[in-house]
Amino acid sequence: MDALDAEGSTGGAGRAPGPPGALLTAARLFAAQVLRGQAQVTFLPSAVAGAVFCVALSAAGWEYGLYALVGTAVGTATARLLGVDHDRVSTGLEGFNACLTALCFAVFLGARHLSTALLAAAGCVVVTVVTAAVVRLLGTWGLPSLTLPYCLLASAATIAAPGFRHVWHGGESTAALATAATGSTALQPADAVRGFFAGFAQIFFMPQWYVGALLLLGLLVAGPRAAAVASLGSAVGTATAWALGAPAAQIADGTTGYNSVLVALALCGVFLPVRAATLAYALVGAATATVLGPAVAALFAPSGGHAFTWPFVLTTFVFLAAAKSFPALARSGVPRPGRGDTVTP
Amino acid sequence: MDALDAEGSTGGAGRAPGPPGALLTAARLFAAQVLRGQAQVTFLPSAVAGAVFCVALSAAGWEYGLYALVGTAVGTATARLLGVDHDRVSTGLEGFNACLTALCFAVFLGARHLSTALLAAAGCVVVTVVTAAVVRLLGTWGLPSLTLPYCLLASAATIAAPGFRHVWHGGESTAALATAATGSTALQPADAVRGFFAGFAQIFFMPQWYVGALLLLGLLVAGPRAAAVASLGSAVGTATAWALGAPAAQIADGTTGYNSVLVALALCGVFLPVRAATLAYALVGAATATVLGPAVAALFAPSGGHAFTWPFVLTTFVFLAAAKSFPALARSGVPRPGRGDTVTP
Amino acid sequence: MDALDAEGSTGGAGRAPGPPGALLTAARLFAAQVLRGQAQVTFLPSAVAGAVFCVALSAAGWEYGLYALVGTAVGTATARLLGVDHDRVSTGLEGFNACLTALCFAVFLGARHLSTALLAAAGCVVVTVVTAAVVRLLGTWGLPSLTLPYCLLASAATIAAPGFRHVWHGGESTAALATAATGSTALQPADAVRGFFAGFAQIFFMPQWYVGALLLLGLLVAGPRAAAVASLGSAVGTATAWALGAPAAQIADGTTGYNSVLVALALCGVFLPVRAATLAYALVGAATATVLGPAVAALFAPSGGHAFTWPFVLTTFVFLAAAKSFPALARSGVPRPGRGDTVTP
Repeated sequence: MDALDAEGSTGGAGRAPGPPGALLTAARLFAAQVLRGQAQVTFLPSAVAGAVFCVALSAAGWEYGLYALVGTAVGTATARLLGVDHDRVSTGLEGFNACLTALCFAVFLGARHLSTALLAAAGCVVVTVVTAAVVRLLGTWGLPSLTLPYCLLASAATIAAPGFRHVWHGGESTAALATAATGSTALQPADAVRGFFAGFAQIFFMPQWYVGALLLLGLLVAGPRAAAVASLGSAVGTATAWALGAPAAQIADGTTGYNSVLVALALCGVFLPVRAATLAYALVGAATATVLGPAVAALFAPSGGHAFTWPFVLTTFVFLAAAKSFPALARSGVPRPGRGDTVTP
Repeated sequence: MDALDAEGSTGGAGRAPGPPGALLTAARLFAAQVLRGQAQVTFLPSAVAGAVFCVALSAAGWEYGLYALVGTAVGTATARLLGVDHDRVSTGLEGFNACLTALCFAVFLGARHLSTALLAAAGCVVVTVVTAAVVRLLGTWGLPSLTLPYCLLASAATIAAPGFRHVWHGGESTAALATAATGSTALQPADAVRGFFAGFAQIFFMPQWYVGALLLLGLLVAGPRAAAVASLGSAVGTATAWALGAPAAQIADGTTGYNSVLVALALCGVFLPVRAATLAYALVGAATATVLGPAVAALFAPSGGHAFTWPFVLTTFVFLAAAKSFPALARSGVPRPGRGDTVTP
Repeated sequence: MDALDAEGSTGGAGRAPGPPGALLTAARLFAAQVLRGQAQVTFLPSAVAGAVFCVALSAAGWEYGLYALVGTAVGTATARLLGVDHDRVSTGLEGFNACLTALCFAVFLGARHLSTALLAAAGCVVVTVVTAAVVRLLGTWGLPSLTLPYCLLASAATIAAPGFRHVWHGGESTAALATAATGSTALQPADAVRGFFAGFAQIFFMPQWYVGALLLLGLLVAGPRAAAVASLGSAVGTATAWALGAPAAQIADGTTGYNSVLVALALCGVFLPVRAATLAYALVGAATATVLGPAVAALFAPSGGHAFTWPFVLTTFVFLAAAKSFPALARSGVPRPGRGDTVTP
């Protein structure tokens, strides 16, 4: 079913491929690494899911699909060039931060500017260096790097952008003091459903519910259990935001739910095993990340920055680091290998 | 003198208590853990001091006494449920961050709202998770967690609050750019004395000098030496603020002194032994924390956040981490066991 | 050539000096440590370079030369008093953060105020404590402390300053929201050259190109190779800023280049060996720090803070921590001993 993921199996058995064959094999191998890199945004080392994600992003705009694909390729190639550990590259762990970095540049600096394309490529090179640093620093505590490298680079780049006139085409800086929420909190059922799906899309900065539905399809193809956990995460995020009185418009466009999707995945199935106890823990984490969202937004607002996936990263670090002190969770076995970010001890 | 602190001694010798007796014993045990949790805000594992603190907070308003007590109980119960190390629970180390978290919600979101009570309870659950994470991360350097868990959660919650309409009843967001100090710097003797006592009260967000006086009484009961060190800390904080030209009104309401109290306690008697050298070191720390106060306030102001005990936490981390490199301080023996936050290596 | 650096060689061979000789020897020793402390701002343990730096700063204003010299002396003396490791003191590693701290107070609080002088002295004592803490915390990853201690203290002090009326003589607080860059981006050749030199001067907060030229002379005297690497760093910083559309006025006064100078030095010759691969790596780092500059400035602006050398510190930490994961760089041998910040494992 997931033939692309059987790395190296295309070389035939018992005989080495000739030069054109070797080139083709190398190209297929690289393509699979890139597609897996896209899928790793949701912790899946699956080339098929990556291909579906690519379709989903292109549905929002072909340039977004292109930026994501080329960005992941640049990141993966940089990691190979610098000699990063082969396992990390082949499971796509060197691609997902670059994928999000390139998309972030496209969305916040304008995808059609040449300057954006050049900067996105440079950003994907630098984020590979940042990834290596984060993996090493967090390795002290056995914590995974998650999307921290992308958050660091994307925050720095978008906050710096208005300072450079060839980079910033958006007029005034977006820096502003945080304000109290306004707008109706009366959530229509249709908006709740739209918010549920848009939560998946906002992981990639997209507000369209159908992009989210396609992404969920990708998850479903690669791992039904992960899709179920992610759906619960999105539902908890949406419900928490509604209960606390977030504006309905923010819920409908997925702003209040995307961090919950990622937290639920990380804490139930990727870094902790799937069990009733970890599921409950993951959903508490999903609710926590929903509250953290406006806090991070308010912290960055006066500098012109955005929340990105900071709420997910910070919540997951806290809940993962704490998990080892809670015997009820710690007793529950080891996480499945090959899923998610490997940890350098 | 401190009978409540003799954990388990009520069970009698040589025979197991019957079911009602067992329940009573368990309840008394839990009550002692909760009271010790309150006292651990000032590093004291003393149930008597915790009871005095409870009276002091109730003097400022019965709802504050209630929030503090129930919050500490929720935090302590959560830690027990999650299977946290027994020693941490029984010395009150799982209660003080929850105590401050609940109080912070009451003061900044309005104690009389049902939403505040529910959120405070949820906050006390989550802060227990944050505590476990912080203990693990700081364990790398042998540093105690202090009130960092509470500072993280309280900052996130108060900054996020205006984004949720069912949570925030305060009208506009409080976010504002930092401004230069205005107002008279001429400090009347009566204001200096009021500031000295209010410094104790502001640890719990209270500006009343008599609340501070009662808290100091609690310290005095549980440990006269700690009370003396804390008083020196408050005096140094007040004097530093006055010398540098802080507005007299800020000195009088304890804003400039509460971090100094905690820094002095931590660096002389809790994590470093009581000696002339460490006392001098602690008082330099107390003065440093006084200067750090307005810096932290200005950093959080544009996002609508508050300084809480961040100046104490940051100053103490720096001075404790540095202490091991200074033979004059390091030679001075080991800190007394049972006091303050134990460190997981 | 660098006679001052031959520590202790003045005592003669085979006989102990008499009391006046011993005093003179001790004074010469201390003077050499202080001068080396100044030179360590650019990673040089060279008293001669420190003396040239002193002349360069005095060219900008005698009070700046004096603050730098006395500040370095206070920091070095504090470290000796507290019993810090002799090697750190004698190579000047306990002086450079104090040097920058004192200068920062002079520039941002007004050199001619008595309050500034007293606070600068206190700051140089406290920065020694901060240095010990940072060395210990970063030792976990084998990372050097760089100018992080100074950045922490200078940021805290300058942001806090407007809160104290006897400290702040500058009227309103400088806190403001970040704005998009305005002003011409057309860079005249003369301005580019001025910016190239001013990049060296801005390490010490000075905007004059001739101060930078004198500092470069100091580098040249102590290490021609370091001077070449630093020059490349300044050129890359200036060119990156120009290509991205930074305002010409900012390039001309060195604001866009000073972090690049330090990053290039750190990553090629000090903490990584001099090779083609590390030079390329260092220049990517220099470009990264140039982009990070406006980001850090925008982050601190709403609180009234400044970028200082934060962009250099953060970029260098990331690139150094990452370097160990890149075999192409890691294979290239060990850094030369005696240069730059030693690392406590």
